[in-house]
Amino acid sequence: MNSAIAFSHWGRLGALTLSALLFVGSQAQAQTDPLPSWNDGPTKQGIVEFVKATTTQGTPTFVPSAERIATFDQDGTLWVSHPMYSQVMYCLDQVPALVEKKPHLKAVEPFKTVLSGNREAIAKLPMKELEEILAMTLSGMSVDEFNTQVKAWFAKAKDPRWHRPFTELSYQPMQEVLAYLRANGYKTYIVTGGGQDFVRVYSEAVYGIPPEQVVGTAGVTNYEYQKDGEPFLIKEPKLLLNDNNAGKPEGIHLMVGRRPVAAFGNSTGDRQMLEYIHSGKGARLAMLVLHDDAKREYAYGPALGLPDTKVGTFTQALLAEAQTHGWMVISMKNDWKRIFTFDE
Amino acid sequence: MNSAIAFSHWGRLGALTLSALLFVGSQAQAQTDPLPSWNDGPTKQGIVEFVKATTTQGTPTFVPSAERIATFDQDGTLWVSHPMYSQVMYCLDQVPALVEKKPHLKAVEPFKTVLSGNREAIAKLPMKELEEILAMTLSGMSVDEFNTQVKAWFAKAKDPRWHRPFTELSYQPMQEVLAYLRANGYKTYIVTGGGQDFVRVYSEAVYGIPPEQVVGTAGVTNYEYQKDGEPFLIKEPKLLLNDNNAGKPEGIHLMVGRRPVAAFGNSTGDRQMLEYIHSGKGARLAMLVLHDDAKREYAYGPALGLPDTKVGTFTQALLAEAQTHGWMVISMKNDWKRIFTFDE
Repeated sequence: MNSAIAFSHWGRLGALTLSALLFVGSQAQAQTDPLPSWNDGPTKQGIVEFVKATTTQGTPTFVPSAERIATFDQDGTLWVSHPMYSQVMYCLDQVPALVEKKPHLKAVEPFKTVLSGNREAIAKLPMKELEEILAMTLSGMSVDEFNTQVKAWFAKAKDPRWHRPFTELSYQPMQEVLAYLRANGYKTYIVTGGGQDFVRVYSEAVYGIPPEQVVGTAGVTNYEYQKDGEPFLIKEPKLLLNDNNAGKPEGIHLMVGRRPVAAFGNSTGDRQMLEYIHSGKGARLAMLVLHDDAKREYAYGPALGLPDTKVGTFTQALLAEAQTHGWMVISMKNDWKRIFTFDE
Repeated sequence: MNSAIAFSHWGRLGALTLSALLFVGSQAQAQTDPLPSWNDGPTKQGIVEFVKATTTQGTPTFVPSAERIATFDQDGTLWVSHPMYSQVMYCLDQVPALVEKKPHLKAVEPFKTVLSGNREAIAKLPMKELEEILAMTLSGMSVDEFNTQVKAWFAKAKDPRWHRPFTELSYQPMQEVLAYLRANGYKTYIVTGGGQDFVRVYSEAVYGIPPEQVVGTAGVTNYEYQKDGEPFLIKEPKLLLNDNNAGKPEGIHLMVGRRPVAAFGNSTGDRQMLEYIHSGKGARLAMLVLHDDAKREYAYGPALGLPDTKVGTFTQALLAEAQTHGWMVISMKNDWKRIFTFDE
């Protein structure tokens, strides 16, 4: 047997082995449920059918891979945000350090109330005063210092109910949707009303979403120099992009530049994003997470049947709009087999 | 021979064949020059050594693939921008249609001068009046209408010297750098002083860079509704991000969220981007394209030895700074074997 024949023989066997492996692989994949934490039903089916419709070549609903963009609100959509956003807790926790640097704030509202530790009084602070705390504690340092501070806080902070790091409180069924979409060529974005710089600190570790795929409420930064001439970016207390309501489609245009084909939200702040994405041509997926599971997570918003004036950010009106437009509603109670990785 | 042995035998042969193929593959790659349009010399070597340094595991200069971000200015760095930016030509070409919609502008400067067709007078318009033309012709329509208009213009417009579509005037050596970096796990971004929405129209076709990887000067958009209730985004004549000078590192932080490790520019508008990126820790690459090839492209800026007051955007001071900081200077004349794909 000469070496040319030997090579061709090897090559053939190699090719056979490889295709056998690929065949076994695709069989195994077809049999694996990509959404094991979802109960069977129209919601789960809606997601699977959307993915099939947009990834099957030669169909009118096919979406080229470059255009497969899916956007996810974060708080209340990908992880727990009730009763208080973790970012607000972070900002309140920064107040003592802020007052140490700026002692005159000690006797000034709303800082005085925060320092008192009186939880009831803190919970009652008007939105304007809360925004002042946010602006002051999320600015005045370099972007690198801010990253370090946020990382350090998440390493220690625990949520008051489960006594676990906030980063363990993402919804497992939504993690599966993220992974399922990515496995089908989708680029997944977080589009959050929360701070863009804040969410970027942990988005990669928690969701596998890199910083450049996080669109959020963003402040101005200024390019400045340290005394030794090193340049740095300082965070200013000035709003550049309010990534809520109409700010979501506007922020998506600024940061992504194309209209996504799938969007997930849970509150009135997500209304325009869902509307914008769902009104595009072709197959579209718009989904609203309904918090109706008082036992395993929380029941709030329309699940309680309260009038909209008492409800906050997820209203009966939004739920009605979802039904009118054909956005799908995810019932945490009925659609999710488990909510957290630590659920039994 | 039982089937277990047969399988293991196949498996071994398969593995051997695969590694033989990979070995042949890497040999072949090592022999292929990734930068064939570059002359050998320290500039080309600098690029190749940077890529090796940042992609060789176990070295102190290794950069994890998620952090491999490279940013490129566009005009004058990736394609011809002399004697006039194509975007300015686009805006001037839109003036007749603008005046048709708003007839009162016909007798008003600077629109009157543009309509006169007097090239000398147009070239002398002060920057403030030029900015007024840009703001008026780049706003007042939906983002979808704008995309369509820009696409239609590029399909017809030709540059005055080579009489070719502008999209054929990218520099082949820079296209090779883009491809070489991407083949080594880099995400390539355009960071342009030009309009973000404008450049996004052709960035994918011309450079293989998707819209979401274009950072540029951006205006405000507003989320509005058509009469039939369809939502759309309208472009407003209001600046959100001036992506020049300090605006480049600020824009990179806003849109990318990490400090890149490589940057390419050609003018004073790129100074802070090069400085910011080069001052980061670890292996860094900062390069300036010097327009010193009067025959094949243009010679302008410091190549002419003129005082900075007469030079415009690429100054002797910038060149001196490059030498001080160790940013590499690309001489179009000496470093590039060919400039355009249509060069012989």
